[in-house]
Amino acid sequence: MAGNKARESSSRRDLAQQITLAESTRSIDRQKTLERLVDYDDVGSNTIRIGISGIPGVGKSSFIESFGLYLVRAQQRRLAVLTVDPSSPVRGGSLLGDKTRMQDLSREPNAFIRAAPASGHLGGVTRATRECLYLCEMAGYDTVMIETVGVGQSEHDVARLVDVFILLLQPGAGDTLQGIKRGILELVDVVVVNKNDGDNREQAQATAASYRKAFELSRPELAQNVFLCSSLESDCMDEIYQSVEQYCAAAMKSGAFRERRRRQNAYWLEVVLQQLVMDRLASDDKLEGLRDGLRAQVASGELSVYRAAFSMLEAFLPARK
Amino acid sequence: MAGNKARESSSRRDLAQQITLAESTRSIDRQKTLERLVDYDDVGSNTIRIGISGIPGVGKSSFIESFGLYLVRAQQRRLAVLTVDPSSPVRGGSLLGDKTRMQDLSREPNAFIRAAPASGHLGGVTRATRECLYLCEMAGYDTVMIETVGVGQSEHDVARLVDVFILLLQPGAGDTLQGIKRGILELVDVVVVNKNDGDNREQAQATAASYRKAFELSRPELAQNVFLCSSLESDCMDEIYQSVEQYCAAAMKSGAFRERRRRQNAYWLEVVLQQLVMDRLASDDKLEGLRDGLRAQVASGELSVYRAAFSMLEAFLPARK
Repeated sequence: MAGNKARESSSRRDLAQQITLAESTRSIDRQKTLERLVDYDDVGSNTIRIGISGIPGVGKSSFIESFGLYLVRAQQRRLAVLTVDPSSPVRGGSLLGDKTRMQDLSREPNAFIRAAPASGHLGGVTRATRECLYLCEMAGYDTVMIETVGVGQSEHDVARLVDVFILLLQPGAGDTLQGIKRGILELVDVVVVNKNDGDNREQAQATAASYRKAFELSRPELAQNVFLCSSLESDCMDEIYQSVEQYCAAAMKSGAFRERRRRQNAYWLEVVLQQLVMDRLASDDKLEGLRDGLRAQVASGELSVYRAAFSMLEAFLPARK
Repeated sequence: MAGNKARESSSRRDLAQQITLAESTRSIDRQKTLERLVDYDDVGSNTIRIGISGIPGVGKSSFIESFGLYLVRAQQRRLAVLTVDPSSPVRGGSLLGDKTRMQDLSREPNAFIRAAPASGHLGGVTRATRECLYLCEMAGYDTVMIETVGVGQSEHDVARLVDVFILLLQPGAGDTLQGIKRGILELVDVVVVNKNDGDNREQAQATAASYRKAFELSRPELAQNVFLCSSLESDCMDEIYQSVEQYCAAAMKSGAFRERRRRQNAYWLEVVLQQLVMDRLASDDKLEGLRDGLRAQVASGELSVYRAAFSMLEAFLPARK
């Protein structure tokens, strides 16, 4: 058992290091990650990817902790949790934060929790999120949860990464107050009204009922997938898991599951291409020599940003004749 | 007068069209925008660029409307307002929303209001925001306000676009409750505690006092620039304007004003270069032929995303020998 435990933690350490490489902006690190991933059969794998979204305060961390503990303890799944929070502070903070937030889950040998770094210019879902997802699956995690905060583009991006998308709601408040943006409900596969406990029960039930009713017209299949939940009482976890499992099993049988992943990949092709081009741009030898000089000329006011950028563009990508 | 009015609205229409071109992803439109901007002397211009940030609900729109009306009516400035809201819905909504929100300002002949479209993969401050800023100044607007919501990267980006950065706060709540992220206060030049009216007065004053006190240690120059404000009563606008004006006048005299713009430009050089490369990528003839075929192969599961992306990369950017 001690040996097992040591193996577990060494493999977790390996994965953590691989993810750090994937998040690196250094060309040589990126290269290693790409070599590792390039032939991963993502469409053929039987993993389950679950997206979790909801506004701050809705109880995402508690839900992920409870649902995660259920998955690893009651269902013997190996779970990786990736959190993508575009509003999290740039350095370290969110990693520590998540570990603190999901204390019991982080102690489970079959759970791995990792916070994606803040976004920079590539938006809420970082360049590396998809690569981290692959790395987790390649390391043997059969279930990956990707958490996002309901902001900007990130929900759309997460929806393009996962097999099942769960939206957490609060009891009571209407769509607008819950920060639900137009189009988000179209991305969702399961709705969970959280905080169904204590004084909130009545409101939670009313909220669930009103969503069920709304979906009956627009998306009848979703009306079946509206659940009440309390992270304080874990009975609901079984119900939610059964729903996710049945959803995936049906989609696998019909072929919709693999079809969805293939469609997602056709989308990511353009994103990956952009990333490869940016990697080259960041490590191009010809530019290296030019960059400092041009930046200095811009900083001294000798040269406009655009003139300088055009010079670099020409060095990097000579106009085709 | 009728002729003036017609000229005004035709020049506003021209600017709106130029901005639509700048926001376009079509290569030919981008080309036209770049030709227009390439030699604009941004460092030499005497415009004032004001960034406005604060969490949703703090009263940004009302503040911009009141401050904007003051600028055009009492100070005879020509004002353009660009809003950058990464959480705004993708299509149209936010434009209409802003026009409704800033009704009186939008009717002023010397004011121009424009919402930036939602961000896509380039983050909260869109590729085009900086170009729109230039276009507004070239069209004769001597003051440009850029509004952002306190989310993700957008405040950092807006701080790199403006001469003066104003943070709006609510009475009462502490830093965390106000959604103020680490590092944001370092970007700020002026702090305005909003909603200093009715029952809020006491709390607003206490909030302003506590920020002044906090700044006295860390940034004494900022302690002078903490103001109370109510969009219902416009007296405070004069005080805030004087502060912005004195700040800019001093910075112009010391050279810090132009120095700041030059430093900002050195930063944007890399961003503009990335945009130029992306423009080429989107319009490359050699890729055009490959793209559909590879996407189909990815969608059918024949080819992995990475293999397909590498093929496109090689066509676009043959490895240097």
